[in-house]
Amino acid sequence: MVRRLSTADPGFEADFLALLAEKREADEDVDQVAAAIIADVRSRGDVAVAEYTHRFDRLDTAAIGLRIPATEVHGAVERCAPEAVAALRMAAGRIEAFHRLQMPAGIDHVDAAGVRLGMVWRPIPAVGLYVPGGLAAYPSSVLMNALPAKVAGVGRVAVTVPTPDGILNPLVLAALSIAGVDEVYRVGGAQAVAALAYGTRSIAAVDKIVGPGNAYVAAAKRRVFGTVGIDMIAGPSEILVVADGANDPDWIAADLLSQAEHDMAAQSILLTDDAAFADRVVAAVAAELAVMPRREIAAESWRRFGAVILLRSLDEAPALVDRLAPEHLELAVDAPQALADRIVNAGAIFLGRYTPEAVGDYVAGPNHVLPTSRSARFSSGLGVLDFLKRTTFVACDADSLARIGPAAVTLAETEGLHAHARSVAIRLRPAG
Amino acid sequence: MVRRLSTADPGFEADFLALLAEKREADEDVDQVAAAIIADVRSRGDVAVAEYTHRFDRLDTAAIGLRIPATEVHGAVERCAPEAVAALRMAAGRIEAFHRLQMPAGIDHVDAAGVRLGMVWRPIPAVGLYVPGGLAAYPSSVLMNALPAKVAGVGRVAVTVPTPDGILNPLVLAALSIAGVDEVYRVGGAQAVAALAYGTRSIAAVDKIVGPGNAYVAAAKRRVFGTVGIDMIAGPSEILVVADGANDPDWIAADLLSQAEHDMAAQSILLTDDAAFADRVVAAVAAELAVMPRREIAAESWRRFGAVILLRSLDEAPALVDRLAPEHLELAVDAPQALADRIVNAGAIFLGRYTPEAVGDYVAGPNHVLPTSRSARFSSGLGVLDFLKRTTFVACDADSLARIGPAAVTLAETEGLHAHARSVAIRLRPAG
Repeated sequence: MVRRLSTADPGFEADFLALLAEKREADEDVDQVAAAIIADVRSRGDVAVAEYTHRFDRLDTAAIGLRIPATEVHGAVERCAPEAVAALRMAAGRIEAFHRLQMPAGIDHVDAAGVRLGMVWRPIPAVGLYVPGGLAAYPSSVLMNALPAKVAGVGRVAVTVPTPDGILNPLVLAALSIAGVDEVYRVGGAQAVAALAYGTRSIAAVDKIVGPGNAYVAAAKRRVFGTVGIDMIAGPSEILVVADGANDPDWIAADLLSQAEHDMAAQSILLTDDAAFADRVVAAVAAELAVMPRREIAAESWRRFGAVILLRSLDEAPALVDRLAPEHLELAVDAPQALADRIVNAGAIFLGRYTPEAVGDYVAGPNHVLPTSRSARFSSGLGVLDFLKRTTFVACDADSLARIGPAAVTLAETEGLHAHARSVAIRLRPAG
Repeated sequence: MVRRLSTADPGFEADFLALLAEKREADEDVDQVAAAIIADVRSRGDVAVAEYTHRFDRLDTAAIGLRIPATEVHGAVERCAPEAVAALRMAAGRIEAFHRLQMPAGIDHVDAAGVRLGMVWRPIPAVGLYVPGGLAAYPSSVLMNALPAKVAGVGRVAVTVPTPDGILNPLVLAALSIAGVDEVYRVGGAQAVAALAYGTRSIAAVDKIVGPGNAYVAAAKRRVFGTVGIDMIAGPSEILVVADGANDPDWIAADLLSQAEHDMAAQSILLTDDAAFADRVVAAVAAELAVMPRREIAAESWRRFGAVILLRSLDEAPALVDRLAPEHLELAVDAPQALADRIVNAGAIFLGRYTPEAVGDYVAGPNHVLPTSRSARFSSGLGVLDFLKRTTFVACDADSLARIGPAAVTLAETEGLHAHARSVAIRLRPAG
């Protein structure tokens, strides 16, 4: 049975704190292994990459090459079901359109003192995209990671993807082709991250690495952070559904299970003010769990991490949502916008009864790479801004420096930084 | 003598690569110490914080309290030199004004399919600001870290600052008061970071921690990343000056030394197309090094890490600048904007002969917390966006879901995520 909490219960706060403190990720201590692989790739380059690829993926890259030819990437589109390709193209168009709206404007401004001040946005020159192989190879994730980089204007996107026993889902290549990316290497794990961060003869170094991966990939990304930028380290997926009693319980059950099927460590939580409705949803989940294809995974996730929280009123929802800071938040209520306006911490919000979270996973347009494990308190989903950076600028002339420079001299002297003070004072003349 | 490179030299590329690869930071292995302190503060809370503060800062916080009373914070303004307070106020006004220009707009858009899509920006609810004690306690840095958070609308800014032997620069408190921050705790080191990240009885947990600190603070920030957000880990300061022969060599020497005086690991580099001018700058640096107050530090920095790079033409500058990706870039040339337009990687640019970098450290307006160690390739200086986060949203109705939902169903089925597909399909009806 799924756990049930109620805000009317005197023990609620303790139960809720336990829910918040719950750790869903196993601590895999792979850091030392990742560190050794990185050091080896740094010192031996392509030779080390080839050895690890042979060992882990049973693949002889000396024979077939580390890079997947661009013709093979683009040719993959022909090898996929036309319906799937059409759906990918539609998704790509919508994702690209929404991310174009995110392109920021710079600042270029002359203030009252006559100082010109501003900020320009520039794309990161080169980005590495890690694409998982095997079960976790989702063409939708390829679009979600690659398209924001392309929209931002990143000049070079280099992709690494492990191909165990030479096997690779052609839809992953098709998604890369549709996203306009064709620099693809058949390498995975910490060795791929190391090659992207430090460069080898075959794989030129990049400036930032994004994309999901297993524990070794995550550990390697943490290790190379600083040498290159990295995106967030994603945890297990999660959904929080706030629903009143007017919903179809089958719909809400389907939404809860759409996250639960991802991963045994995924988490699905229902907040509702209607106890009878909660019972109907729990029953609908049980019924669907009996027949759905990924029932082992979903049942385990629901049993271990699922929760139903009964509210005295939906008015209680925003405070609890903010404490949970969910990756995905569905508001299946009559006035979802009014509720959304009261929420501060959420990765993505799905408004109303006709917006299941899964449309956001594929075709809505906003990114599906979102902050997990309560990190929506301080971070954001992937977007165009993650592939841009800001450079500020200042321009003084003799007059404007004369106006603002003396205060800089005072502060520099106060801080004991006399050379700072001198570099300003030496240029000062009486203000014109 | 400072090292000299020349792009006309056949060995230039090798010399330049050596310069790029140079490591200026000592690897202090303090990670295990930081980890132990964090674990202790997590388990014993305030008691552990008090013990570490007694041990490291020789301070009995049981007697005087962990928190510095707000009246003492605001009262500090009266204890400082009026000229310094006036300069701080002027700096604060200019920093605040520039950061207000950075406030981003959200997106709220209905597309051709009738799907409402958007993105809202929200302030991070609570931010911790680490302020170093002792020599590194710069009131200007307090303004640069606290004001962007205030402008972003962060509701709670909690400050920790070590006060060894009870000593604290009153100008640091005055800067906090001017920035409108008065939740200040006399605690430093990894114990301060742990308290901010996990909370104790006296110090409520925050969502993100920013601000510079020593190796223990940096290690602790890396450790708590994920539980809270962190800002970048700052390395030693650096300046790159691109100057033609028409500059006053004393001015350029002053600018190079203004970074060199920060820290023995700081780096100052001159790029010029005029060999005679380069000689004059080197001589001016030597002359000033003989008399400047922080000459031991500056001389060591200049000797170990300084460089003069002679160019055949200033046209060569942008490519080299981008590879160095400097924290601070001065363009002391006739047409600085044309040069700036060709540069992709720099933290902050100072345009023209009358814009010494040091005005940016104090009063210009843009932030002086900037990416070091070539991280301007992929990251940005501190700004308002670092204290905000984005939540995307999607709203479909029955009709718009009917238009975009089928493609989501196709992709979910293709990825083997049948519960995802079902959560969309269950809501579909023939498009209206």
